[in-house]
Parts: sequence; structure tokens; C-alpha cells
Amino acid sequence: MAKSGDKKESKSSSEGITFSKSKDFSEWYPQVIQKAELADYSPVKGFMVIRPNAYYIWQKIQDYFNERLKVLNVRNAYFPLLIPESFFKRESEHAHGFQPEVAWIANKNGDENGEGERLAIRPTSETIMYDSYSKWLRSYRDLPLRINQWANIIRWETKTTRLFLRTREFLWQEGHCVYETKEECDKETLNYLQEYARLCKELLALPVLMGMKSEKEKFAGAFYTTTIESIMPDGKSLQCGTSHNLGQGFAKSFGIKPLGRNGGLILPWQNSWGFSTRLIGALVMTHSDDKGLVLPPRVAYNKVVIVPIYNDESKSEVLKAAKKINGDLKDFDSFLDDRESYSPGWKYNEWELKGIPLRIEIGPKDFKNKSVVAVKRNTGEKLTIKISDLKRQVPKILEDIHNELFSSAEKSMNARLKKNDNSKEVIKLVGEGFTVLTNVCGGKDCEDEIRAKAEGLKVLMYPLDQPKSMSAKKCTFCNQQARHSAYVGRSY
Amino acid sequence: MAKSGDKKESKSSSEGITFSKSKDFSEWYPQVIQKAELADYSPVKGFMVIRPNAYYIWQKIQDYFNERLKVLNVRNAYFPLLIPESFFKRESEHAHGFQPEVAWIANKNGDENGEGERLAIRPTSETIMYDSYSKWLRSYRDLPLRINQWANIIRWETKTTRLFLRTREFLWQEGHCVYETKEECDKETLNYLQEYARLCKELLALPVLMGMKSEKEKFAGAFYTTTIESIMPDGKSLQCGTSHNLGQGFAKSFGIKPLGRNGGLILPWQNSWGFSTRLIGALVMTHSDDKGLVLPPRVAYNKVVIVPIYNDESKSEVLKAAKKINGDLKDFDSFLDDRESYSPGWKYNEWELKGIPLRIEIGPKDFKNKSVVAVKRNTGEKLTIKISDLKRQVPKILEDIHNELFSSAEKSMNARLKKNDNSKEVIKLVGEGFTVLTNVCGGKDCEDEIRAKAEGLKVLMYPLDQPKSMSAKKCTFCNQQARHSAYVGRSY
Repeated sequence: MAKSGDKKESKSSSEGITFSKSKDFSEWYPQVIQKAELADYSPVKGFMVIRPNAYYIWQKIQDYFNERLKVLNVRNAYFPLLIPESFFKRESEHAHGFQPEVAWIANKNGDENGEGERLAIRPTSETIMYDSYSKWLRSYRDLPLRINQWANIIRWETKTTRLFLRTREFLWQEGHCVYETKEECDKETLNYLQEYARLCKELLALPVLMGMKSEKEKFAGAFYTTTIESIMPDGKSLQCGTSHNLGQGFAKSFGIKPLGRNGGLILPWQNSWGFSTRLIGALVMTHSDDKGLVLPPRVAYNKVVIVPIYNDESKSEVLKAAKKINGDLKDFDSFLDDRESYSPGWKYNEWELKGIPLRIEIGPKDFKNKSVVAVKRNTGEKLTIKISDLKRQVPKILEDIHNELFSSAEKSMNARLKKNDNSKEVIKLVGEGFTVLTNVCGGKDCEDEIRAKAEGLKVLMYPLDQPKSMSAKKCTFCNQQARHSAYVGRSY
Repeated sequence: MAKSGDKKESKSSSEGITFSKSKDFSEWYPQVIQKAELADYSPVKGFMVIRPNAYYIWQKIQDYFNERLKVLNVRNAYFPLLIPESFFKRESEHAHGFQPEVAWIANKNGDENGEGERLAIRPTSETIMYDSYSKWLRSYRDLPLRINQWANIIRWETKTTRLFLRTREFLWQEGHCVYETKEECDKETLNYLQEYARLCKELLALPVLMGMKSEKEKFAGAFYTTTIESIMPDGKSLQCGTSHNLGQGFAKSFGIKPLGRNGGLILPWQNSWGFSTRLIGALVMTHSDDKGLVLPPRVAYNKVVIVPIYNDESKSEVLKAAKKINGDLKDFDSFLDDRESYSPGWKYNEWELKGIPLRIEIGPKDFKNKSVVAVKRNTGEKLTIKISDLKRQVPKILEDIHNELFSSAEKSMNARLKKNDNSKEVIKLVGEGFTVLTNVCGGKDCEDEIRAKAEGLKVLMYPLDQPKSMSAKKCTFCNQQARHSAYVGRSY
């Protein structure tokens, strides 16, 4: 079914990466993903197979976030994949936003005799969840209600699909909460966004910018949308997670009207918030290099690989020492590559390609000095470490690698940010791959005009950290009173 | 969309269970599920919402099994939800078995211009996975390949749907492995079944029978199917998990032909194995009672609830002690119910209904004796325990509860098993709610005749533990040479 344009032939991983990250970014990215066996194309156009190396990253993300959810009093649940058509229509902006991307079921529908309404595969779950909420929420005592769902989502993208970044099916979490007051809703909407930024930093070593989406870019049906985005090495911004204050619109459409403190029915406030397997794409683009994948240690399946170097004479004692070391480092899911049919050099390339954070080489000389050479995947730095000191040193080195990856990514991202208030210069800078902080009026017409000025140019976000007053400032593009400090640039 | 026949009105949980497990089993079961807030009906007929109290059980099952998968060298991955029609057709028995239950996509298909083939929502993933396997498996060195997937499944059931037991969407895991030899495949197919039995026992306190499915009942496309089943309190057998040796049929249909050790291409052996959210239904039916849900402690979100009993005078010191105890028992996710607007008795009912394994009551008298009363949800047994001893006693009591639940369930199940070799008596016994061990010839025609003898009667399994020789035995139903010792009875 897939045509050759969609499917890059995956060559044997031993061949390594043939594209350059700096010169052929858009070819390099899918090559790293396929050769590191993170994902593969599916026979159905626009779909992908998430292979074990990448699914493990997703599991680590789930584990991390599930722990946070417990602390935040959010509970996991699961709602149906299929949504009746009438549900979509209830919130008109929402329906309008999602309709074109929805896949419908052909041969089955809502009731037994086949005369029921059409069923959609969920492109997001607000409508099916809020129907249940309307039955469950009887009183202000039932609030706040905080539910999260881990699920697969189908959105029939018409733009070119890219592994992890834009596929017609993806995995995500979607949190959906209900509150008595706007204040609580505002506060927690922002709090979930901060949790996302924290996850990106602590788990994926990924720096992000936090901001508010413009009126044009907000979620269909939302009061406002907050976003975290990271600037990729090609200068494009990648949205990594969003948290929406949905206002009271859905509550109204779905009849969520619990009894209030004063006896009457109240219209509660809601938010929804999500991130997806797209995070894996952000991680790959940010950290990896011309040798292949670079994994932050906290999401690496094997954090350490041990490669023995020996000749016939030294073989038995080197292997013995290597096995001992492998046993000592089990806490780091270490892995001894003692395959006989491959040379040490071949193994180095293999595990650099696959992104194992730390390689430990042990040969006869090292062994005599009671030490090994440890090589950091991110920098190539070589460290000579006493075998007896390994168990103490390895966690520190892994910690260093995480911090170095974050710092390096942050430095690169900051180098791609500029500040400028001249329309022509802003457009030129964006053309050169920069994301530019400038001032905008926030009008929808002006935003349309900004988009028309250059291919891909758009208002990315209003950073959360806004100047106290905009009164002295003009919109860079239309010269009217500015209302927001904004990042403009290109995005995925 | 749902008609009233499908949807039982969920009343306030405070009203408790009104049906009797022994007298109105089929009404009692959905009432427990709804009142304990495990699940709710969906507006789409045959679908359900898995609420947080049940999803937590599923998460514990996932956590337990993911740890086992790591030990067993099985890695998690994720394959597309949508499967091209041509894939199904490749393995004809498989296609024939699943076709009627498949939901197809209406408005989208396999390629850009809308002329591609139809897409199905997965009813199981053999075909989409093995297409990838055929690309990945180049050599015997790539074997064994062991991959598991946690996913949602759609099968448009035409039989009456029941919460957790038979719904048109369910969550499951499906393991799919490839081996060089039949021997390895046989061995591991059985090993996964044993893992399932272990999970049922260790986590859910659920006893199961292990066996082989008859030719008629095996998985569509399988060489043979092994199964674990548990006999429910109404006498019906519930299939809790299956592990199939798929033989070489799928490898042939999907062109999985890696290079063998001797240079030529080989046709490998495959298995697939799965369990689903149905396990939650088995757990509810087996352990719960007329007061509501009974949860085995290892899958309980809160293992302990603390209920303070006080008057105005004793309030502050009782609450202080209750809070201290709650802090001490945090490892058991203890929960202090200090709501002022409900009486202790109301709270007892509430948490008995919800299945919390252990209730700790603390009142002024207990407090003076430096002790509390602990009440076991499963038996109602009351234990007086020194406050200073609680931290040491609670884990032991929880362990006792688990073991008591298992023993009690095993005893009940065994009481519903009989052995008989007389056709009429077997039918009578099954009619009385027993599952009967007898001898069968294994012929498909005979099996059809068995089914025709009584409503719901069928061959459930050939237990793994077979007599050494069947030569002296006759089929109970057709009087020909018997080939298997078999459990016959009714099933879900």
C-alpha cells in the first residue's frame, strides 16, 4: 500500500549513519530513527511501528509521569475509542477544529439494528469523557475531578508525515479536570504545563520555552492554551505539550452542572492537557549526532555496554573481568557484548549508533592496571577508572552525561533565539533559522498577515514571562499598540 | 444511543448492593461493578468506561507482568491500530475466524488518493506484526524474537455484552514470538501460560485450571491453543488467558524466512499469547460479596482505611491518633476518612462496598488501651491490635487476606468440579452448575453433538495433566476410543 516515496529502505544497522545532521537534517533524522531501531514505517501510509528501543523510552516517560500524577491526585482511567457523531457537534468550535481529520467507522454504528449514528475514532477525548462527567458530578463535593488517560489517537493528517513528529496514529496522555472556580482551573492548567517542562528537563534533558498560544493557534474549543516548545537544531520550534483552560464551554455543552455550595447548580471550569510520543522525536533531534542516537541515561534501556578486547592469550582473563564488571553494574542494566564474530571497533560503532550512554572497554593492559576505559557517548570523552571504583563512579558519570546533554541543548537553543523589533529584520532572521522575540498586537488579521509574509512564519507563543507593561510598545508587524511579547518563527 | 435495556441506572453508591450473589448472580455482578465505581456503560452500545478504581487494577497487572517480561527477555512495542484488508486474507483460517467481528474504516484508506484498500481496526495483531517481522528477521541470529504489545482491541461482539467479560472494546497484552525450532516454541508457549497462572494466583488470588483447547475451540490459525480458565461462582468457566503455538502457517503466509544455520532459508515457529481486562471481571465475580467489592490487597489502591470514632470531647485526641496511624501506614496507601458529615457506620458501608481490604477503627476506648480494632474485608474478622504494633502487623494481615482469598476461591472452585463418565449424568451435573472431568474422543463431529445435547454445554479444555494412557477408555458421548481427559461444562 505504501509507495516508495513514503518508505525508506532500512539498511543493515552496521552501515551507520550516512547523512550529516548539520547538512542533511531532514534525511539524517529518519535515518537515525530507523538505524537505531526506534521505529519503522507501516504498510499503511502515515502510520508507524514503535519498536522496543523507542517504546522503552515511552514506558520511562509513563513511569515518571504516573508517579507525578499520584502526587497531583490525578487518577488514570480509560474511555472508549469510538465517539458518537452527535457528541462532536455539541461543542461547535471543537467540532469545526477536528472534523477534517476524523476517521469514521464504516460497517458498525451505535445500536444493534445498524440505524444508529456514525462513530468516530477519537482524535481527542473531551466529548466522550465529559458525557460521563455529566453523570458522575452531582455536587461541588465531587470537585475537583482529575482524570488522566493513556491512549492511542487517530488524526488523519494531510501534511507530510514524519516518524514520531506527525503520524496518523500516536500515543499520548490526556488529562481532563473539572474545578469549581476559574482560579483553581487557571492555577492547575499552568501547573500541569510546569510538570511537562520538568519532565522534559529531568527525564529527557530537553530545554523548553513556556508560553501561551495566540487566539488563532489555541486548541479548538479552549478558553486559552498554554504550550511548551523546544527549538530544534534546524531552527524550527517543536510543540512538546499543551495545557488548555477550556473555560465553561464544554461544561455547558455536556450539561456538567453539579450542585453548588449555595444550593443552585453551578457551571464548573475545566482543563485538558497532553503530551505524546512526539517527545521521542524531540529527544532524537536534540541530542543525536552523525554517529547515531544519543540517549539521556534516564531513558536508556542499557545505560552501560561493556566491550572486551582480547587476543587468544588474554581472552579468558579479560572475559572473566568483563563478566565481573557486568555483574557489578547490573543496577545500570549493563550489557556485556561478548559476541565472538564482531571486532571491538564494529561493536563501538553499533552501540554508538544505538545510543548507549556509556561504553566500558576492557583489554589486557587495562586489566593489568586494574582499570578500564569508559567512553561517554555524548562527548566521546575517555576516562580511565579503577575497576574497584566503577560502581561508585558510573552513577556520577551518568548524572554528568544527563546534565551535559541538557546544558548543551540549552546553549544550542539559546543560540537560535534573537530579539528584534524590526519587521524586515525579523523575517530575515527567521529565514536564517532563528526564533525571534518581538512584540505583536495579537489581532487575528495581523496574525494572518504575519503568516503571509514568509513561508512557515508564524506566532509561536507569548512567553509566560511577559513585560509588566506593553504601553510604550508597537506591534512589529502592523505598528498598532502591542499587547504581547511573542516568539515568532517556524514550527513543526 | 444506548437503549434502557443496555444501561442500568447507577444509583448513589451509598445505597449499597441490593442483589444477592447467590440468588441473583447476573444482576449482582454489574451492580457491584457500578457501585464500586469500577466501570460504567458507554453511550455506544457494547462499550464501557474503565473508571479509576478498575484502571488501577489493570496498572498493577501491567506492572507485575512488565517485570516478568523483562526477566523473560520479552520487549514491549506498539504496532498500528489499523490493518490493511489484504493482510487478514493472507492466513485464511485466521481471516475466516475474525472477519464477522471486524470494524472497518469508512472515509480513509491506505493511500493518499483514496483508492487504497480497506482498513480494519485490529481485532488482534498477528497480521500487522508479522509483516514487520518479515522485514526484521534476516537470520537465525535474530531469533528468538520476543515482542509484547499493550493495546486496545475492537471486536464487534454480537452476543450480549457484559462489563469486563465481553465488550466490543477491551484492553489487553498480546505477546508474539518467533523461534528457530518447534521445541523452543512448544516450551515457551507453555511457559507463558504458566506465567499467566502465576499472575492470577500471586496478584489476583485467582485459582485457574490449565489446559489445551479442542480443535474446534482453538485460536483461528493456530496449531494448538493452551488456556487458563477459572470456574465462576455461577458454575460457568471463564477463560482468563490463552497461549497459542501458531505453528509455521503465519511465517509462510507473511514470508518470515530468515537464513538458517546451514545456509538455506528456514520457516520459523511462532507463538502468541494474551490476557485482557476480562481478568478484572474474574476477580470481581470470584471474591466479592453481598456487601460489594472485595479486592485482593496487592491490587487495592488503598489497602487500609482508617475510620475515627469520637464525640465532641474525644474528637481532638482521636483524630490526632488517627492521623499518626495514617502516617505510619503510608506504605500501604492508607487513607484517613475524617469527613465530618458522615457517621462511622456510613463509612464502613462505603469502604466495604469499594473493597478496601482492611479497616482500622479507632475510638476513645481503643485509644485509652493504646490499641485499635482492625476489620478484615474478606471475612469480617475483627482483630484488636496495639497501635505500636500496627506497622508490623498490617503487612502480615494483608498477606493473610491474600492467602485466605485464594484458598477460599480454590475451595469453591474445587467444589464445582466433578468427575463422571456417564453421558446423562454429565449433562445433569452441568445443568446443576458443575464442571465435569470426563473422557472424549476429540472428534469435531462428536464435539458438535456434545454442544447440541444441552444449552451452553461444551468441551472447555483438555487439562494439561492427562492420564498416561487413554487406551482403556471410551468417549463418554460417542463411545469411540477416548483420546483426551476433558473438562466439559458451560462458559462465559
